[in-house]
Amino acid sequence: MKIDGKSMRTIWVAEDGRTVEVIDQTRLPFEFGVLQLRSVEDAAVAIERMVVRGAPLIGATAAYGVALAMADDPSTGNLAAACERLIGTRPTAVNLRWAIDRMRMHLGNCSPEERGKAAYARAGEICNEDVEINASIGRNGLGIIRGIAAEKAQGEPVNILTHCNAGWLATVDWGTATSPVYMAHDEGTKVHVWVDETRPRNQGASLTAYELGHHGVPHTVIPDNTGGHLMQHGKVDLVITGTDRTTASGDVCNKIGTYLKALAAKDNGVPFYVALPSPTIDFTLFDGVAEIPIEQRSGDEVAKMTGVSEDGSIQTVNIVSKGSPVANYAFDVTPARLVSGLITEAGICEASQAGIAALFPDRQ
Amino acid sequence: MKIDGKSMRTIWVAEDGRTVEVIDQTRLPFEFGVLQLRSVEDAAVAIERMVVRGAPLIGATAAYGVALAMADDPSTGNLAAACERLIGTRPTAVNLRWAIDRMRMHLGNCSPEERGKAAYARAGEICNEDVEINASIGRNGLGIIRGIAAEKAQGEPVNILTHCNAGWLATVDWGTATSPVYMAHDEGTKVHVWVDETRPRNQGASLTAYELGHHGVPHTVIPDNTGGHLMQHGKVDLVITGTDRTTASGDVCNKIGTYLKALAAKDNGVPFYVALPSPTIDFTLFDGVAEIPIEQRSGDEVAKMTGVSEDGSIQTVNIVSKGSPVANYAFDVTPARLVSGLITEAGICEASQAGIAALFPDRQ
Repeated sequence: MKIDGKSMRTIWVAEDGRTVEVIDQTRLPFEFGVLQLRSVEDAAVAIERMVVRGAPLIGATAAYGVALAMADDPSTGNLAAACERLIGTRPTAVNLRWAIDRMRMHLGNCSPEERGKAAYARAGEICNEDVEINASIGRNGLGIIRGIAAEKAQGEPVNILTHCNAGWLATVDWGTATSPVYMAHDEGTKVHVWVDETRPRNQGASLTAYELGHHGVPHTVIPDNTGGHLMQHGKVDLVITGTDRTTASGDVCNKIGTYLKALAAKDNGVPFYVALPSPTIDFTLFDGVAEIPIEQRSGDEVAKMTGVSEDGSIQTVNIVSKGSPVANYAFDVTPARLVSGLITEAGICEASQAGIAALFPDRQ
Repeated sequence: MKIDGKSMRTIWVAEDGRTVEVIDQTRLPFEFGVLQLRSVEDAAVAIERMVVRGAPLIGATAAYGVALAMADDPSTGNLAAACERLIGTRPTAVNLRWAIDRMRMHLGNCSPEERGKAAYARAGEICNEDVEINASIGRNGLGIIRGIAAEKAQGEPVNILTHCNAGWLATVDWGTATSPVYMAHDEGTKVHVWVDETRPRNQGASLTAYELGHHGVPHTVIPDNTGGHLMQHGKVDLVITGTDRTTASGDVCNKIGTYLKALAAKDNGVPFYVALPSPTIDFTLFDGVAEIPIEQRSGDEVAKMTGVSEDGSIQTVNIVSKGSPVANYAFDVTPARLVSGLITEAGICEASQAGIAALFPDRQ
């Protein structure tokens, strides 16, 4: 998408054809900066330090990490070492492992002389595939926004609420939940996005607001507490969120607080859609609340807030009464009964076992 | 309640019998300090600067403001001037006006010579009445907690979720939502409180956590997004919140986000109670969502966070992407259908027109 008029992706190869460049997301939204990755170690550290985040972008960065290793030393031993180093950055990240497995398989069939060039080509393909999946999600979701727009009074925007950052900054381009929004905006369908702040890590107030604002999409940041009130008063036409993991029955695991918005949407007759690449559907799970373990993270993420102080410096402050314990559950599960539909690259389906099975008949 | 073992109220007369002292709530939770009010102007400024907050405490401070004026100059002209100054601090605050009207009426019947002593006595009565109302709410709500405790396994606490600060710091003592909790804790019934952070102004993370912690009540601060997940997993036995205004039909206007917790409670079969002094019931309103106007406040309250930095200084930082608009709705309305009951000083009733009418037959 665009940053102040300039089209960008979150990761690309520099003009020298070797160095990999990424947007340094640790400095957003306060500063925009590009970080150069010149070695597999640089790529690994970028993943570890969350310079890049979001499953698809982490996968893409790992793929280019392998390419950087091959440019340096295309031996079979170095290929194995690079893959091991990169998998070790986030041992449980499914997308990361998938990207590395694809690189390893492809390069295993190449001679060392071919590997450098082949690795960059394959990593580029992995990026392009992510962009294409997200663009397909966008095209499929666009119909929902157009349908609502057709019912609105002339000049009234479609008001879309989103939670967390399932935006282009979490992917190579387009994002998932934001993809239909960008497509609608770019074709001239009027949209306005209510951006949930998304405590405790504020991905909405920082990343989603940043990317929408710099692409030029009208939006308003709200505390996570606000969505229910807005829906009661007809100020939300549609909710679209992303998801980390969806069960075969359509239960959706996503950032903590998603469930509360889904309840409010149901109570007020507001459509609640979830956008996802189909590989995030876990066909082995059928009861999200019972079966998906919810990660608990450090209380410091709740207690400590980072922002820009009056003098322009970036500061971190503690906002919780001293000595009070803090809990930090990272995700929650929204039961399928609250989800109006799943927007995937293959089409839109009902959030149910039958709906998912009909759209993905080969994945049972 | 207690702060580190010492019993306190939020407002009291100093040993000199004239100066009024209050806890300086602008410095909580980072510092505990007492502010001395020596004149009606001091009292007015304390209300304006939110040194004191919470409707009952503002009323009590205004009453003592009149007393300070009478100690200074008990003339009828000064009585009128003092009342005017105090009402001007928060022109729409019902409790403030009610307290001043009572002072004015009482003192109007006294000679100037009697007014100083009479004013302090009347202000003291207003404080004691607030304490008694809140203690009654506590005694009435205590039965609910005891009932749940009786069903829990030995040694397991009753887990109570609350939103915002309807605690003793918002009143003269006990608080409203917290009053049953303090009574349960003080009698040895095991409780644990989930404290919603309560964005944007963080009254939970700062004030509720502070007062529970310093009284010794076990509690955990959570982001506002968390309650639904906890309820899905059986980790919440009871929700108790306060309210600013309740309709004759039992709709509850309270801090933004209350409605979302009520939806989650309903969805998970968790009892959702609202604690209130009966004067906050507005017998002229019957449809809270349609009839109660919701105040919109400065976006700075969302964008700017105040806390303690690493070096111990109190700092304010901006956390929202620069240039992004911010909306800040202060309250929302929870429909009566989601409320299990209203805990008042006169007893507990159903949140319905019939329930309220039966408990307050003279107030129709």
